[in-house]
Amino acid sequence: MVNGGFMLFSAIVSWYYADGALEGILTASGVALLLGGAIMWITKNHHKEIQKREGYIIVAFGWIFMALIGTLPYIFTNTIPHFTDAFFETMSGYTTTGASILSDIEAMPKGILFWRSITHWIGGMGIIVLAIAILPLLGIGGMQLFAAEAPGPGGDKLHPRITDTAKRLWLIYVGYTLAETLLLKLAGMNLFDAVNHSLATLSTGGFSTKNASLAYWNDQPLIQYIVILFMFLAGSNFVLSYFAFKRKFQKIFRDEEFRLYSVFVVGLSAVAALLIYFRADLAFSSITHPMVWGPFESAVRHAFFQVISVITTTGFVSADYTVWTPFLTIFFFGIMFLGGCAGSTSGGIKIMRHLIMIKNGMLEFKRTLHPHAILPVRYNSKAVPQPIVFNILGFFILYMLSFIVGTLVFSWLGLDFSTALGGAASTLGNIGPALGNLGPVDNYGALPDAAKWWASFLMLIGRLELFTVLILLTPFFWRNR
Amino acid sequence: MVNGGFMLFSAIVSWYYADGALEGILTASGVALLLGGAIMWITKNHHKEIQKREGYIIVAFGWIFMALIGTLPYIFTNTIPHFTDAFFETMSGYTTTGASILSDIEAMPKGILFWRSITHWIGGMGIIVLAIAILPLLGIGGMQLFAAEAPGPGGDKLHPRITDTAKRLWLIYVGYTLAETLLLKLAGMNLFDAVNHSLATLSTGGFSTKNASLAYWNDQPLIQYIVILFMFLAGSNFVLSYFAFKRKFQKIFRDEEFRLYSVFVVGLSAVAALLIYFRADLAFSSITHPMVWGPFESAVRHAFFQVISVITTTGFVSADYTVWTPFLTIFFFGIMFLGGCAGSTSGGIKIMRHLIMIKNGMLEFKRTLHPHAILPVRYNSKAVPQPIVFNILGFFILYMLSFIVGTLVFSWLGLDFSTALGGAASTLGNIGPALGNLGPVDNYGALPDAAKWWASFLMLIGRLELFTVLILLTPFFWRNR
Repeated sequence: MVNGGFMLFSAIVSWYYADGALEGILTASGVALLLGGAIMWITKNHHKEIQKREGYIIVAFGWIFMALIGTLPYIFTNTIPHFTDAFFETMSGYTTTGASILSDIEAMPKGILFWRSITHWIGGMGIIVLAIAILPLLGIGGMQLFAAEAPGPGGDKLHPRITDTAKRLWLIYVGYTLAETLLLKLAGMNLFDAVNHSLATLSTGGFSTKNASLAYWNDQPLIQYIVILFMFLAGSNFVLSYFAFKRKFQKIFRDEEFRLYSVFVVGLSAVAALLIYFRADLAFSSITHPMVWGPFESAVRHAFFQVISVITTTGFVSADYTVWTPFLTIFFFGIMFLGGCAGSTSGGIKIMRHLIMIKNGMLEFKRTLHPHAILPVRYNSKAVPQPIVFNILGFFILYMLSFIVGTLVFSWLGLDFSTALGGAASTLGNIGPALGNLGPVDNYGALPDAAKWWASFLMLIGRLELFTVLILLTPFFWRNR
Repeated sequence: MVNGGFMLFSAIVSWYYADGALEGILTASGVALLLGGAIMWITKNHHKEIQKREGYIIVAFGWIFMALIGTLPYIFTNTIPHFTDAFFETMSGYTTTGASILSDIEAMPKGILFWRSITHWIGGMGIIVLAIAILPLLGIGGMQLFAAEAPGPGGDKLHPRITDTAKRLWLIYVGYTLAETLLLKLAGMNLFDAVNHSLATLSTGGFSTKNASLAYWNDQPLIQYIVILFMFLAGSNFVLSYFAFKRKFQKIFRDEEFRLYSVFVVGLSAVAALLIYFRADLAFSSITHPMVWGPFESAVRHAFFQVISVITTTGFVSADYTVWTPFLTIFFFGIMFLGGCAGSTSGGIKIMRHLIMIKNGMLEFKRTLHPHAILPVRYNSKAVPQPIVFNILGFFILYMLSFIVGTLVFSWLGLDFSTALGGAASTLGNIGPALGNLGPVDNYGALPDAAKWWASFLMLIGRLELFTVLILLTPFFWRNR
């Protein structure tokens, strides 16, 4: 029903621009609404409470079902007639990855481009619901820490405070989207591009309406700075934005995750900026537009843009980082494993987990020296319960394992060394651009079909933080109650 | 003193073959014995017991000092006049890595080649002492499990049972070395090559006396099968070999680590064999010698040889796996992260840690479903104490971090993408051959000096299981008692 509703918005866009896709989008919307209505009508007398196992099944298959429905506008308008491609594009949208199979984006009808951006925005919204309301109830530990900041993980029912918080966070999400749209419009973008890029920024998605992505506006630095700012906000914990509006700035600056996030962003961008400026003569050959404010500003801007784009897992492109220097290629490959903050729309491992792992790693050294001392990990001045630390370490290992298996399968399907490694890191982290043949100026269209399905799978498990989907593959999940 | 003594053996070899290196080696031996004697004389009245912190310092700096002394034969004979190269070669020897800077090994004096193999053998011996006697006392958790199988980790003194066990294990080590020498001699190798390759096999080192490594004997499959067998033994827990001689075969087949090790070796070799046989037309272009027993046997042999060589971190080469298929390149890159069994001379992460991580990972899923159940990891029918599981998870994360930093530094020093990744994985895991410009048929000689020092550092921290060296870099280690 939600999908069908949002398709109607796309239909309005399509009608306004008379792009010829109206009929197809309306058909898709009709099918989606009918299907949704039918399911709601069939299940209307089903009032049993959702059990834990059912929760996992609903979340995982819900996302797959959403992605199936989301392909309809592409298929009915014949803009992406091949089903594999349409599914990939939709899954990439909902998971806020932003990897695309399209080679000529600008040739697409405007209504379809809008639908594409909307899938990001729905996905980003979905992640907030998941992170706030559902995942803690399912016992996904990594998020519990964040949940402890917001409402506590309650019993088996949806706590009224949880829905309250979720509503407030959505309001911030909507507010930020409108604010970015307005600023981009004022900075010189047309309304259509401004709306689409705002939808793709706040969800840390990365779909653009231009073939060159944000590099299209390389002669308008202001536009790129606005996008940098909102990518940074989208990658931070939305609860902190709420505190900001409540003027509780202390809470923000004392938040250890936010501090590490800022240190990473500023520190890594500074390193990249210096390397681009002093080392990479190639850097500027990849920037086709004039350097309006001089080469140093240009290096700083592209460094911040690309580092924040990758860390927040947005995936917008202002320049091709794979042609800068060999070191910067590995550098960007490395930061694909960072991710944004917990409670944001970003994907990846996330800063909070890295923070807990760093702290626990240091304590592990101390434990070696003092084997009998009890040394709990402290986060924001509170001791983190042992099971949560355990869960975070387990998550990291599972993430690395998924990355290795992901790489091996891509390689098996014919991708070369760096394409396979980069592709696995990028899809699992919901980033978008990768390395090799899947670099920032390439797209995923040339992959064999099997690789597109595998990429869709990696995007899904990455988005749902591994456990939620992978638990369905364990035998004991299905065995007994 | 030990170094100086073993140099005398090399001098005998040098004298026997009249290779012209006798004088240099004798000088080196004299300097080493004098230095060692002087230190023993100075410290002869120092009877204070070794404290924990001192233990770390002794182990880490002891290895560095050993490597410094070990360079003397290369330098005094002028065979490796450049100090950086000599240090790299020695560190590669002691850490049983087997990476070499030599491009023409066969041109070296025989006494020097023997010294090179001896450094492996001393290093392998050192690892047994470390694993059995010292590391458990320092509280290095990963090995405690193994230590629990052998003698228990006692108080602060060296337990008499520990030295007993260490002696028995050395006896097995010496026995295996003699057995392999005899078998290789019977299979047609000359005595010099047989001794050297046995020293390099049992220590999972990988230095060869031939430029082509074991590919030199591609027309003598029997020799390669003997090496395969002893690489497998060297990568297994030496305590199990002790049980075998006591005819306690039950203990071996019930050992979960040994079972997983066998499954990995056989399973992965079988996969590689099929891929070489059916997919890699290139495979046989890299095998210059005739396929005496037909192409299928050849594929099976090279698959087993290379898989076991990499898993046990030996690093002998029978064929160039980087030219088989792109998938097999990534496959071999992946198995560089496995390592042999705990209590063997192999390096890397080690099977026991993988086993505990796999078990804990499965339990993590169960814990998600049943958050209040207490589910300990069980290993060989015993519950593993929580701190040890914690230590193993911490070790893995630290290993991955070291790998990433290792790659970034190599890349910074000018190595290309796959060379940097492969080089870091290979040196950290004490393997030897890597990818790209450091592939199985290449050597480390062309690296810039800084990269050779960095590689030496990675070999050292990998060999000493990270904590022992890296703890010296933490501020609190030096702070107070």
